[in-house]
Amino acid sequence: MTTVDDVSRPSRLAEPDEGITVEELRLAARNHGIPLEALRYDVTPAGLHYLLIHYDIPDLDPATHAVTVGGAVDRPLALDLAALRARPRVTRRVTLECAGNGRALLHPRPVSQPWLVEAVGNAEWTGTPLAPLLREAGIAADAVDVVFTGADHGVERGVEQDYQRALPVADALREEVLLAYEMNGAPLLPQHGAPLRLIVPGWYGMAHVKWLRAIDVRTEAFDGYQNAVAYRLRRDADDPGVPVTRIEPRALVRPPGFPDFMSRTRVLRPGPCTLDGRAWSGHAPVVSVEVTTDGGATWAPARLDDQSGGEFAWRGWRHEWTAEPGRHVLGARATDASGRTQPVEQPWNRGGFANNLVQRVEVVVLPG
Amino acid sequence: MTTVDDVSRPSRLAEPDEGITVEELRLAARNHGIPLEALRYDVTPAGLHYLLIHYDIPDLDPATHAVTVGGAVDRPLALDLAALRARPRVTRRVTLECAGNGRALLHPRPVSQPWLVEAVGNAEWTGTPLAPLLREAGIAADAVDVVFTGADHGVERGVEQDYQRALPVADALREEVLLAYEMNGAPLLPQHGAPLRLIVPGWYGMAHVKWLRAIDVRTEAFDGYQNAVAYRLRRDADDPGVPVTRIEPRALVRPPGFPDFMSRTRVLRPGPCTLDGRAWSGHAPVVSVEVTTDGGATWAPARLDDQSGGEFAWRGWRHEWTAEPGRHVLGARATDASGRTQPVEQPWNRGGFANNLVQRVEVVVLPG
Repeated sequence: MTTVDDVSRPSRLAEPDEGITVEELRLAARNHGIPLEALRYDVTPAGLHYLLIHYDIPDLDPATHAVTVGGAVDRPLALDLAALRARPRVTRRVTLECAGNGRALLHPRPVSQPWLVEAVGNAEWTGTPLAPLLREAGIAADAVDVVFTGADHGVERGVEQDYQRALPVADALREEVLLAYEMNGAPLLPQHGAPLRLIVPGWYGMAHVKWLRAIDVRTEAFDGYQNAVAYRLRRDADDPGVPVTRIEPRALVRPPGFPDFMSRTRVLRPGPCTLDGRAWSGHAPVVSVEVTTDGGATWAPARLDDQSGGEFAWRGWRHEWTAEPGRHVLGARATDASGRTQPVEQPWNRGGFANNLVQRVEVVVLPG
Repeated sequence: MTTVDDVSRPSRLAEPDEGITVEELRLAARNHGIPLEALRYDVTPAGLHYLLIHYDIPDLDPATHAVTVGGAVDRPLALDLAALRARPRVTRRVTLECAGNGRALLHPRPVSQPWLVEAVGNAEWTGTPLAPLLREAGIAADAVDVVFTGADHGVERGVEQDYQRALPVADALREEVLLAYEMNGAPLLPQHGAPLRLIVPGWYGMAHVKWLRAIDVRTEAFDGYQNAVAYRLRRDADDPGVPVTRIEPRALVRPPGFPDFMSRTRVLRPGPCTLDGRAWSGHAPVVSVEVTTDGGATWAPARLDDQSGGEFAWRGWRHEWTAEPGRHVLGARATDASGRTQPVEQPWNRGGFANNLVQRVEVVVLPG
């Protein structure tokens, strides 16, 4: 008899020379990255921000949708969009990055959403802070986790589920955490969680639950699939691992010049060229970006733009380069105030998370 | 010495068991399809419409951008956005599909943008008709082609170029052809050609030149790369082939139930289930859609929605199905008033264009 187990296969690593599979391609055709030239926009325009959607985009009616606050609270609540919009309104510029960014560049490659380096975006999220709402509900003194449930429903590794992620209470009570109903000044788009999503500044994307329908306070640790099974840094399949939480530092170069359609190799004329890009970290402010134009042999400090977007937004950087004819490999490396920096050797783990290996941008500078 | 030839490799077919390459994946991460559940929207919302961008998205200033009309005309023109907006305003609902849709399902697979079935969208495009503008400019009696040039610049197969496509004069003068500055009631997004693009209802996407900066009337046939080399139906690399023009008929099923994350296999509970989806053709109105729930062994007629979106918009369809426990393969087949229909064997050509082979949606219906 056919059961829900039959639709999922076990997780696996690709064979050494195995190309991207049709299943990975099917995910890539849905879940797109930011086109790297769009790093030019400080605030990522609609449709260019990366997307990672586990199941289908739900079809929710903003006129009737409500979020409940329940579990270990004194006063359970239910708030519709009008009630949420009547509460204090905050706008924050926040860089979101998928925890799986960089996965398809790993050797061996964990078979899942095959990101290269482009699963990022920086948007302005508007909503109401979560912490005052939790305090109004009266969370129990012995509360441990707060579980956020989306309206998106599917199967992963044989487990049928609504998408659910928990935050430890202390993280849920951070003042920066928002229940967001607008992105870049407009109501959320369907694919970004319309009509309501969570925003957890500094954390990888899996924490920012979309299509939010329930907030549930628990006095025991949450052991749901997305916390206990999926988003963990493991050495191998038997390792219980540690949770994926905050975004590791990363810088991206906005590829200069113009591309070849198929190889995406960049073509430049020789001469002075200002390289620029963005850098971010979820742990602490970015304090330096270094640039290489020789594939990592040497590094030079980049000039950082003002941190005008606030502490959770990416930061612009630029670097003057004299492009000489020939082939070059560009890259950039961010370091944050916690001392974390980007590795030049891959930080491999079984799920392919948080691979912030330095990007390689291949460039051909034409003869003068 | 390094030249522009060195950034491009010749076109090729994948080896029989060759997985998707990193180059194809890099294109897939940029150029996304419509998530198939978004077939629920008659008008595709921002960010869910498919995208195919040959080079980089240019950074144009709508305040200063202008399009020129020149070549074999009596009165060359230059019009900025204000001038275009002051002209007659028309809104048309138009289904756009990439000519390469279906390419990655072909055997052997042409190595290029690896679309499965999702390179489509249906939007409302607002702009001003092109034909009156060409008449005002006074096109030469012996004009043959009208060349449209975008501001996007790159290299393909060693040819450095601005993206350029020509239409035969008769096609350029069709009353439906628009110079569009809005999509779904808002100014064009950067990735859809902001601030101005061409819309050629009924034609595959390559004709709808984005970031339009010049319109050039020619008295000799245009032999630019995108017309003479790229978008042609060829049996093999030596075949001169025929141009890719209008969209072949296609129907897509909106996958029912809910998905497994990785395999995208659909899971349903048994019982009555209304299947629905969209169907379109660029040659003539869709006159019938047939549905299969047994992988093509038998077909039943679907009910067509009204053609309320006009003759160039996709048309909704639905079909009542009783889902019985077990595995099923769903599909749909559109036929248009010209008698064209979808094949059940792949329509192979060297560039992988216009593959409108019937879609396969794998479904598991659980026990009752």
